[in-house]
Amino acid sequence: MRLDDVIATLRDIVGVRHVLTDPDTVAGHVVDWTGRFRGSTPAVVRPQNVEEVAAVLGACNDAGVAVVPQGGNTGLVGGSVPLHGEVVLDLRRLDEMTAVDTRAAQVTAQAGVTLARLQAHAAASGWQYGIDLSARDTATVGGMIATNAGGMHVLRYGSTRRQVAGIEAVLADGRVLRRLEGLDKDNTGYDLAGLLCGSEGTLAVVTAARLRLVPRPAYSVVTLLAFDVVDAALDAVGTLRQGLDDLHAVELFFQDGLDVICDMWRLRQPFDVRHLAFVLVEAAGGSDPTESLATCVANLHGVADDVVAADPAAARSLWRYREAHTDVINLVGTPLKLDITVPLDVLGSFVSTVRRRVAAVAPSAKVWLFGHAGDGNLHVNVTGVDPDDDRVTNAVLECVAELHGSISAEHGIGTAKRRWLHLVRSPEEIATMRAIKGALDPKGTLNPHVLLPPADDVDSGSRF
Amino acid sequence: MRLDDVIATLRDIVGVRHVLTDPDTVAGHVVDWTGRFRGSTPAVVRPQNVEEVAAVLGACNDAGVAVVPQGGNTGLVGGSVPLHGEVVLDLRRLDEMTAVDTRAAQVTAQAGVTLARLQAHAAASGWQYGIDLSARDTATVGGMIATNAGGMHVLRYGSTRRQVAGIEAVLADGRVLRRLEGLDKDNTGYDLAGLLCGSEGTLAVVTAARLRLVPRPAYSVVTLLAFDVVDAALDAVGTLRQGLDDLHAVELFFQDGLDVICDMWRLRQPFDVRHLAFVLVEAAGGSDPTESLATCVANLHGVADDVVAADPAAARSLWRYREAHTDVINLVGTPLKLDITVPLDVLGSFVSTVRRRVAAVAPSAKVWLFGHAGDGNLHVNVTGVDPDDDRVTNAVLECVAELHGSISAEHGIGTAKRRWLHLVRSPEEIATMRAIKGALDPKGTLNPHVLLPPADDVDSGSRF
Repeated sequence: MRLDDVIATLRDIVGVRHVLTDPDTVAGHVVDWTGRFRGSTPAVVRPQNVEEVAAVLGACNDAGVAVVPQGGNTGLVGGSVPLHGEVVLDLRRLDEMTAVDTRAAQVTAQAGVTLARLQAHAAASGWQYGIDLSARDTATVGGMIATNAGGMHVLRYGSTRRQVAGIEAVLADGRVLRRLEGLDKDNTGYDLAGLLCGSEGTLAVVTAARLRLVPRPAYSVVTLLAFDVVDAALDAVGTLRQGLDDLHAVELFFQDGLDVICDMWRLRQPFDVRHLAFVLVEAAGGSDPTESLATCVANLHGVADDVVAADPAAARSLWRYREAHTDVINLVGTPLKLDITVPLDVLGSFVSTVRRRVAAVAPSAKVWLFGHAGDGNLHVNVTGVDPDDDRVTNAVLECVAELHGSISAEHGIGTAKRRWLHLVRSPEEIATMRAIKGALDPKGTLNPHVLLPPADDVDSGSRF
Repeated sequence: MRLDDVIATLRDIVGVRHVLTDPDTVAGHVVDWTGRFRGSTPAVVRPQNVEEVAAVLGACNDAGVAVVPQGGNTGLVGGSVPLHGEVVLDLRRLDEMTAVDTRAAQVTAQAGVTLARLQAHAAASGWQYGIDLSARDTATVGGMIATNAGGMHVLRYGSTRRQVAGIEAVLADGRVLRRLEGLDKDNTGYDLAGLLCGSEGTLAVVTAARLRLVPRPAYSVVTLLAFDVVDAALDAVGTLRQGLDDLHAVELFFQDGLDVICDMWRLRQPFDVRHLAFVLVEAAGGSDPTESLATCVANLHGVADDVVAADPAAARSLWRYREAHTDVINLVGTPLKLDITVPLDVLGSFVSTVRRRVAAVAPSAKVWLFGHAGDGNLHVNVTGVDPDDDRVTNAVLECVAELHGSISAEHGIGTAKRRWLHLVRSPEEIATMRAIKGALDPKGTLNPHVLLPPADDVDSGSRF
C-alpha cells in the first residue's frame, strides 16, 4: 500500500481534520521541547477514542508503517518524536476521566489527560495522585505510564508503575487489551499492565488506565540537616528510612550548589557556618510526625547542625534551597544533564568518583550534584563543557555502570541512551526484551527506534 | 535423548545424591499439602546454586523434558507438583541471604529461603518484610515470587511484586537473567522482574531476589466496628482508606461466622446485641494512630457499635474473631474453598448474589464469607456440598466474572483454575500471554501444564 493510501485510510478512520499533514500544523509534533530531537512525519493522527486508536494502529500495521505514540511530548530522551519519519499518533483527544471511586480510592483516566487535571480531579474528591513532577501541566497519563514517570514522591508512593491498577491498551495490530477493574489482589496470569509501564510505546499504546489514589496527608514537617562528612549524610538517609514510615522526601545537595543559589538569588545561608553536605527531610501523614522526626534526628550520627521549619512558609524556604538548583545551574551555563541512580551503599563512592572521572576528560568542567538521595537518584549537571560532549556522558554513565547503577532513573532510554543500554542491561536481558518485543509487535511498527539498541532496526520489518 | 540419559546428565550436574528417583524419597514432592493434587516424576533434582539450576534447565530443554519448579510446595492450585510426569526442580538448597542493607532497606535472598527465616533475619536488623502469611514456616521466597503471594498486609505494603526490587532467574534454556542491584528508580527497559512475579514458573525459574524491607511500626491500634447494613460497612471501608494512611488491615466478616466461632470456641460475643456485618480495622505506624483512627471512626455513617482494643491482648482477642473463621468452618464440614476479588463498589452485590447463586445449584449449601475487605478480597467457603462440586465452583466464579472480579485473589491459576481463566481474561489477553510464553520458552519445557488454558499443551513441544 502506498503511503498516500494509508493516509487516506487514516482520514476515513478519524476524519479529515484529525489527520494533520501540513508542515506548519505538524511542527509542534516533530520536535521535543528542548529542541534537541527533531524529525519529520507524513502525518499526525488524532483519534478520539480507543476504537479509532485500534483502527489506526491496525491500518498502519497492515501497511508496515511505523508509528510513534505521543502525549504531552515532555520527554527528555527523544522517545516521542518521529526521528525516522514515523506517523505520529497524538493521544491528547482521549481526555476523559471517570468520577473518583472513593471506596476503591481509584479513578480511570484516558491517556491524554494531563497530570494537572488528574491532580485537580483527585483533590476535588479529597484524594491525591501519588505522582508529582514539574511538567504537570503538559505531561499526560499515557506518556507517564509509557515512561514509568517518577518525580518527587517516589520514596513515599513509588513510581507510576505502582499507581497503575489496570490498563487499556492497543497492540501493534489493533487488538485491544482492557483490564480496568483495578483489583488490588489479582493473580490470574502475567502482569501485562506492569509490563507496559516503562515500555516507551514499543509494546502497545496505552489508551486509558485505572489509577490508584492516596490520602492527602493532614500533617507535614520539614527539616534541613547539615553534615561535614558525606558518608555521615548518607548513613543518615538509611537511618531516616528505617525510623520514619511517614517519610515523604529525602533530598541531598552540597555546599557548592547552596553557595551559588544564595549568591544569585540573594538568599540567606540556612546555617551560620559552612558545611559539606545537606539532607532535606519531609515527613507527612495522617498524624503529626513532628515528634517522631525529632526523635529520629536526635539519634543520627554526625549531624553538624539542623533547622526545623516552624510553619509552611519556612518549609517552602527550606525546599527552595533544593529546588533552586536546576534554575541556578542553568544561569551558570548550559549544563549537560544526566539523571542516574546508584545503590545507596555506593552513593558515596559515586559522589567522589564521578567528579574525578569528569575532570579527567574535561578539566574545565564543573560537576553539580543534587537529587533524591532516598532513592539513590542524583541529577548530574556538568557545566563548562559542550552539552553534547559524549566523552563526559561516557565518563558519567560508565561510572554509574561500574557501581551497578542505572543510566536512567526516571527519563527512560528513548533515542538518547540506546547506545549506552548495554552498560546496565546484560546481553541476556536485552535478548529477552527483544523476544518480548518480537512476540507483541512482530512487524516492528510500534515506536521501533527507541529503547532497544539499534540492531533492532535491522531486524524490524518496518518501512521507516 | 532417552530419559535415562537425561537423568544421568542431571546426576553429573548436581551429584548423584541430589537426583532423587526412589518412589519413597520423591513421595513428598509429587503431591500438594492438601492431598488434592497428586502426580509422579522420573526425578527430583536438587541443585545448590544458580549455575546448577542453569545447567539442569539447559539439559532438560535440550532434551525436551518438562520441568516443574518447586519451593515449599504450599500452593493450593496444583502449580508445583508433577501432574504430567515432569521432572521436579527442588529449589530449597538455594537458601542463603545477604546481610540486611540498612541504607537501602533491602536484602537479597535465594529462592529456597523460607518466609519465616526471612522475617527473622529482617527483624534481627530492626526491619520487617512486608508480606506475612500463615504458611510462613514452609513457603519459600521463590514460590512466593512465582505466585505473587499476598497475605495479611497487602492493603499496607502491596503483594509480593511490590516487594521485589530485583531478581535473578534462569530462562528455560539455561540463560541467566541477573539484576539484583535493587534500584528504586530504574527506567532502562521492560520490567522483567515484575513480569516473572506471578508467572507461576512458566517463564523462568527464580533463583534469588532483592527484596524491599519496611520499618517496624512503633505503634498500633485495633478496633472492631459493627454494622446493621452491609452497604454501610462497605462505605466505611472506603472512608477508612481515605482517612487513614496508617491503615494496616481492614477485614470483613458476618454475624453467622461470628456466631459459630463464639459457640464452638466458647468466646464471648464482642457486642451485647447481634448485628449484621463487622469491620476489623488495624492502624499502625511510626507515630500513634489512636487519635486519627478515633476521629475517622467518629465520622463514619451507620456504625451500630464499636470497641477499641485497650492493650495488645485485647487487640489479639479482636483479631481472633476474624482469624478463627478458617478453623471453625473446617469443623462445620469440609469446605469448598475459593479465593476471589471483586471491585469494592460491587462487593455488596457480590455478597448477596453469590449466596443466591450457590443456593440455586446446591440448596443444602451454606456459604461463609470473610476476608480482606480493604482489598476487595473475600474467602468464599461453602459447606454442605461436595468440595469437588464444579457446579458450585461455576456458580461462584461466574458471579465473580460478571462483577468484573478476579477468580484468583492470591493463590494463582495453577492447574486448578485453568479451565476458568477465560472468565476473567479476554482472548486478546490470553493470546498475549501465550505470545510471551512462546517468546521466553519456545520449546515449552517450563511448567507447561499450569496457568494458560489446556490448548497450550497441544502447542507445546514438551515430551511430557
